[in-house]
Amino acid sequence: MKHILVKTDGDTVRITMNRASRRNSLSFEHLSELLSAFQTAASSDASGIVLAGDGPVFSAGHDFGDVASRDLMGVRSLLQLCTELMQTIQSVPQVVIARVHGLATAAGCQLVASCDLAVAASSAGFALPGGKGGWFCHTPAVPVARSIGRKRLMELVLTGDTIPASVALEWGLVNQVVPDSELDDAVDALLARATRGSMASKALGKQTIYAQLDRPEADAYAIALEVMASASQLPGAREGMAAFLEKRKPSWPD
Amino acid sequence: MKHILVKTDGDTVRITMNRASRRNSLSFEHLSELLSAFQTAASSDASGIVLAGDGPVFSAGHDFGDVASRDLMGVRSLLQLCTELMQTIQSVPQVVIARVHGLATAAGCQLVASCDLAVAASSAGFALPGGKGGWFCHTPAVPVARSIGRKRLMELVLTGDTIPASVALEWGLVNQVVPDSELDDAVDALLARATRGSMASKALGKQTIYAQLDRPEADAYAIALEVMASASQLPGAREGMAAFLEKRKPSWPD
Amino acid sequence: MKHILVKTDGDTVRITMNRASRRNSLSFEHLSELLSAFQTAASSDASGIVLAGDGPVFSAGHDFGDVASRDLMGVRSLLQLCTELMQTIQSVPQVVIARVHGLATAAGCQLVASCDLAVAASSAGFALPGGKGGWFCHTPAVPVARSIGRKRLMELVLTGDTIPASVALEWGLVNQVVPDSELDDAVDALLARATRGSMASKALGKQTIYAQLDRPEADAYAIALEVMASASQLPGAREGMAAFLEKRKPSWPD
Repeated sequence: MKHILVKTDGDTVRITMNRASRRNSLSFEHLSELLSAFQTAASSDASGIVLAGDGPVFSAGHDFGDVASRDLMGVRSLLQLCTELMQTIQSVPQVVIARVHGLATAAGCQLVASCDLAVAASSAGFALPGGKGGWFCHTPAVPVARSIGRKRLMELVLTGDTIPASVALEWGLVNQVVPDSELDDAVDALLARATRGSMASKALGKQTIYAQLDRPEADAYAIALEVMASASQLPGAREGMAAFLEKRKPSWPD
Repeated sequence: MKHILVKTDGDTVRITMNRASRRNSLSFEHLSELLSAFQTAASSDASGIVLAGDGPVFSAGHDFGDVASRDLMGVRSLLQLCTELMQTIQSVPQVVIARVHGLATAAGCQLVASCDLAVAASSAGFALPGGKGGWFCHTPAVPVARSIGRKRLMELVLTGDTIPASVALEWGLVNQVVPDSELDDAVDALLARATRGSMASKALGKQTIYAQLDRPEADAYAIALEVMASASQLPGAREGMAAFLEKRKPSWPD
Repeated sequence: MKHILVKTDGDTVRITMNRASRRNSLSFEHLSELLSAFQTAASSDASGIVLAGDGPVFSAGHDFGDVASRDLMGVRSLLQLCTELMQTIQSVPQVVIARVHGLATAAGCQLVASCDLAVAASSAGFALPGGKGGWFCHTPAVPVARSIGRKRLMELVLTGDTIPASVALEWGLVNQVVPDSELDDAVDALLARATRGSMASKALGKQTIYAQLDRPEADAYAIALEVMASASQLPGAREGMAAFLEKRKPSWPD
């Protein structure tokens, strides 16, 4: 890995973008390394993944040095890889949390929206500036639109201006905003709360939620009901219910 | 009815879960009684339904004593009944309002999300704790996801922690939070405001909204436009417009 | 044009509903003029459109004097024209901003929800009162439902009560609320921020967002990815990236 650092720390895999000189911009190679790191973590025993960035910003989005030289098919491949990364973050069995500092812009903001959870330093900012710069943030707008309201999305993409962390919190783009000095502690504390209990249960849970979101409610129920019925027969559910009924601590099978 | 109390009070049907010793947990029998009560109320003249719980909490969700003994097909039947109840709440012609005190957890929280409106006591709490307990809240997440933002949903389902009423209000899961002592008055006041005017018009209105939600906007318009055109010819609309134009009070035909 | 004023002011087209005596209600003729004005503006060089209303209110919605005399097919035509206007606002290449004062009710509130951006005077109010009046706001609920949460939508449509601008802001129905005396300045300032950069890029951007909203995320990505790949080859994107890499100001080709 040239552009990222991957560290296993107890039950947590810490993936850190480490291309500070390029503001952690997402070249094809950088995206490939991130995708590979998430795929490797997916098949590990870890229960959580922290996505962070080294240097002054979380991520500045696509690397124009990489994009500018590509033809249509070349950009298409780049965006397919980028989309695959975003969808992999949602499909890995681990809880994925973004640790956001500095700026998260364009595809960097898309990364934040695609993680299950996000904690931001109070000095952090968020932007979808593509429209202002000539290449609109079409794909970043996909998960951001699904996290915040429509008028707010339109303000972000049309003005291209940066919103502070406090506004991102109010709009629901992040879960918490904390003083910069407390960022790591807050990330770990939220991740600890989010990874308690049966990991298999939560893995199936997050995957099913992404499957049922943005569908008519009856379609969503059709998906969620079948998964939940099947899940009731899995060892985690059996043990959880037995422990509850027997008033003892559960011993998770996974 | 063994598990619920049903009382007709003027234009309002009050359905109260009355299984306090089991924290109003939703066994098959309890769900059957609730479904039957909503179906009976649906064909009554009532304009509003209040769903409440007796005892320390609103509802603790599924009854693990009932679930734990069921095989896959048995749990599937239970979840189908539960889903039918949630969908019936949305399809009855009455305005349905949840009166929430204590805790609303798992399928209890799903009930709150499925009612048209909800008022909570300021001491109330809300949680989707299944993931923590081994059996993820897959179906409760369906209507909750459609009431609050995605990041907030993920925080609820992954941590399993309880949010206070004030946070539920901020996230849009409930319409109002009031001091505990004012809960009944606030429920009745909101219900009175929500049931003014033509009941037939509001019944068609809420049913059409649930039909058009969560669809691409053009599909939603295709539904809403046809209903609204037809509705313009109904006695309620005719009378409402005539009264407006003649500057008199309407006399609702239904 | 009998019911509206259209003025070109630099890069901005200002469309003003001018039927104050009827509270800018949306008769067939009024809707036709608005549609025609948006279609004409669409093919102009303007980068932004301001939609405003003269007189005491922004718009009171449908004109009952017009509706009451129509049969089913007549109302259907009226609603089809109204829906075409709302969809045209979203498809024109310009950034459309609503300047809201007084009241925006029923289809008037729908106009606000359908514009890309909205700024409200602090004395403004918003309502979907149809249900209270006998003819439910079925189509106005379509874009409003896509701007605010479900419980809040249900409160608006079932009570029919007016919410103040501050609540509309909190719920995400408008982007900004300013003192009445600063309304015009705030509209122009937000529009200036929203129309910077390449107009072609933003036009494609807003159209693609409306196309991908309210779809399962994978479907949304399928749309946004293809548009973004193609857009990378357009002159605006090429110039934007070149200017960024060469550290100079871009010179937009459109």
